[in-house]
Amino acid sequence: MNEENRREERIGGEVLFEGRMLRLERDQVRLPNGLETSREVIRHPGAVAIIALQDQHVLMVRQYRYAIAQETLEIPAGKLDPHETPLDCAERELREETGYRGTMEHISTFFTTPGFTDELMHLFLARDLVWDPLTPDEDEFLAVERIPWGEAVQSAQQSKFNDAKTVLGILLVQGLIA
Amino acid sequence: MNEENRREERIGGEVLFEGRMLRLERDQVRLPNGLETSREVIRHPGAVAIIALQDQHVLMVRQYRYAIAQETLEIPAGKLDPHETPLDCAERELREETGYRGTMEHISTFFTTPGFTDELMHLFLARDLVWDPLTPDEDEFLAVERIPWGEAVQSAQQSKFNDAKTVLGILLVQGLIA
Repeated sequence: MNEENRREERIGGEVLFEGRMLRLERDQVRLPNGLETSREVIRHPGAVAIIALQDQHVLMVRQYRYAIAQETLEIPAGKLDPHETPLDCAERELREETGYRGTMEHISTFFTTPGFTDELMHLFLARDLVWDPLTPDEDEFLAVERIPWGEAVQSAQQSKFNDAKTVLGILLVQGLIA
Repeated sequence: MNEENRREERIGGEVLFEGRMLRLERDQVRLPNGLETSREVIRHPGAVAIIALQDQHVLMVRQYRYAIAQETLEIPAGKLDPHETPLDCAERELREETGYRGTMEHISTFFTTPGFTDELMHLFLARDLVWDPLTPDEDEFLAVERIPWGEAVQSAQQSKFNDAKTVLGILLVQGLIA
């Protein structure tokens, strides 16, 4: 079956919710076998995540994640503002969340969960960090932690981090700089 | 700042949408600084993904993803049915999507995107595959591809896959079986 035969055709749809952060749409689609069904999709502006290295350490942020009702230790990340490029967003988020500006190298771009959202995440590697803070978002409460890079890689391999982009980012960068 | 100080307290909320696949809630929360805001959360039943190895190849599925309007090549995956354990789900999804049953080893569990959903994904490694198909979901149209394991690892490292769980899963399993 080629791609043309697997494509699902949009035959209608509606915006069910437009929020501060998410837009939920439900589309009516025609399946490759001619049947019709609905697809629920979260429209997302896109996001960045940053592996920021400094003296053989990686900068991580500890924060409370309301959706999962617990704290996580993650690499810095955030959503694109309207009309913002991924590179500009990565520079802004790193300064807001850690206080540092770095030289940014694009590493990878991937869909976080293509089963229900179009969120596209751009991963950057930041080095040569210099202190140049921006004011954080007023509803974000973060603590920055400097983790030895070898320890971070081991924690990723042993599944001690529970955030997908953090594990992915560390393993991917480890392969590049090893 | 300790965890207690970063916690966001729920002070109210509503279900905005309950669909076939997703439930969207908007909660009113009190932030650590005493201010109030809203948090939009997608409630998700949880999911599994499977690295299925056979004769130095990994089984992957090519499918059309409506949310991103393109085909992807991903490792087999799917959502938990009500009351289904992650292990049962992994066995069911692998049989539905590839036709194979395997011995399952739990590798990792992680949140896919804790910024806006509680989706928890359980990653399994399947080996000793035997043909034992289940009927696929009627709205899923998949093509199974057998990719040489070394080629899959290289593709993951070079960001030739664009699905987060696929890259994460391959890199994680590569570290375990290398």
